[in-house]
Amino acid sequence: MPPLKALAAAQVRLSEKRTFERLSIPTTRFAAVDSRAALTRAVHHIGLPGVLKTRRFGYDGKGQYILRENGDIEGAWAALGGTPLLYEELVPFDYEVSIIGVRSASGDIRIYPLNRNYHAGGILLLTLAPWHAPSLASAAAKGLRRVLEAFNYVGVLTIEFFVHRGRLLANEMAPRVHNSGHWTIEGAVTSQFENHIRAIAGLPLGDTAARGHAAMINLIGKLPNAHKFMAEPGLHWHDYTKQARPGRKLGHCTLIESTAQRRDARTRKLLARLGADLLVTP
Amino acid sequence: MPPLKALAAAQVRLSEKRTFERLSIPTTRFAAVDSRAALTRAVHHIGLPGVLKTRRFGYDGKGQYILRENGDIEGAWAALGGTPLLYEELVPFDYEVSIIGVRSASGDIRIYPLNRNYHAGGILLLTLAPWHAPSLASAAAKGLRRVLEAFNYVGVLTIEFFVHRGRLLANEMAPRVHNSGHWTIEGAVTSQFENHIRAIAGLPLGDTAARGHAAMINLIGKLPNAHKFMAEPGLHWHDYTKQARPGRKLGHCTLIESTAQRRDARTRKLLARLGADLLVTP
Repeated sequence: MPPLKALAAAQVRLSEKRTFERLSIPTTRFAAVDSRAALTRAVHHIGLPGVLKTRRFGYDGKGQYILRENGDIEGAWAALGGTPLLYEELVPFDYEVSIIGVRSASGDIRIYPLNRNYHAGGILLLTLAPWHAPSLASAAAKGLRRVLEAFNYVGVLTIEFFVHRGRLLANEMAPRVHNSGHWTIEGAVTSQFENHIRAIAGLPLGDTAARGHAAMINLIGKLPNAHKFMAEPGLHWHDYTKQARPGRKLGHCTLIESTAQRRDARTRKLLARLGADLLVTP
Repeated sequence: MPPLKALAAAQVRLSEKRTFERLSIPTTRFAAVDSRAALTRAVHHIGLPGVLKTRRFGYDGKGQYILRENGDIEGAWAALGGTPLLYEELVPFDYEVSIIGVRSASGDIRIYPLNRNYHAGGILLLTLAPWHAPSLASAAAKGLRRVLEAFNYVGVLTIEFFVHRGRLLANEMAPRVHNSGHWTIEGAVTSQFENHIRAIAGLPLGDTAARGHAAMINLIGKLPNAHKFMAEPGLHWHDYTKQARPGRKLGHCTLIESTAQRRDARTRKLLARLGADLLVTP
């Protein structure tokens, strides 16, 4: 079953990197690490800074340790040693983009516009879509198409890329609907959720074109005042009704605007009201 | 509780007509009928053709009897006599429109664009929205606002109007979300369903502006081939997963287009494919 293979490849970070290599999708340099000696060799071979990661079950920066100097090897091994690991170069990337697509059982492929993602504390805080960067969008779509076809994949799949000196470096793939695609609920003709269901139910895929210009803001740790936010024109509110906890995604809101300029200006104001600690501002 | 009063008024067709009269909203002429003698008097006073209706629990033309000549009195009385009735002039109207609005607990009112409705066999088959008829839209909104305010109503309420010689005649009101507003799910910034919940939960109301030009087609009696319909660009499919039965609404589909012209042209084709028996074509 091809989607299971894709799932297995994405769960195991080493297979994921090897998949990118095999499909000629540029990615960061990496090495498998199964012993302290292998970690020392990997750091020597790939260089510093780098990230030591568990090969399985990582998301939102969990199960990762950043090494900036040789003296960090000891601490990294103490934190993560004993499970299968991966050492990867830490690329001083300019920003992150992601691309989401869907493939039907009959091989039809539809790809959503490019997302630009902004993180805070390792957690996705903001996605702007469509992100107008035609050459990146086309390169990302090409890579995504290769992955979907290589696995005979059926359903929605996402690839995250770093943008480094104007070029894409595949960071990871997620064989599922993705947080950076939540804007498609109101901001695309067919949402990523509906298209996933259409694909696995053997139905024709829906149009992935954008409707307007969307900003999706994750509501992390605590929810702002719903009354005030819901009064914002064109703002769509999603409360997951989860227990509040620091760093937990409790909901998101999506703003749809008629132009990218208006979207970006209003997003800045909304983020300021949220007191959001953005690493990079739009 | 004001919404209950509105519910009571709408359930009882006589109170509904009296509400329209009291609020100076033009409506068809009518009389209460509680005996065969009263029916004869009403037919004499109001004229023919006319409709004899039960005062409660009517929808989609159920509980109604059309009288075209004096000889029909006997059959009408045989069919419906014994329950509280209403006799109403049968207006040879040109078409039907409806207007949907929402009022919050704090008295804020938002009104959706005007709907034009097409029926087949007494059942709503098609709604086009926004229906571009500025003077009708403004008159309908004025009447709706009066009803919402008169009842201190909280939630979504709908009024159906006949258009007769370019003027509105209130037909009935529905104190709820309405089938002619299903297009708002994809065709308005905030759907009628979300706005009803916002209103009754004490949240700020959402924008009722249209997004594009919508056609909502009810799928009545049997569903067409989902695969073929879902392949139509910009067509949104809603299957209620109900048991098929002649005359039963089993689902609806909503088409969103960039212009009213494109919407109308594609709607004609879709209706033809459905073999829909339209009384009036768009």
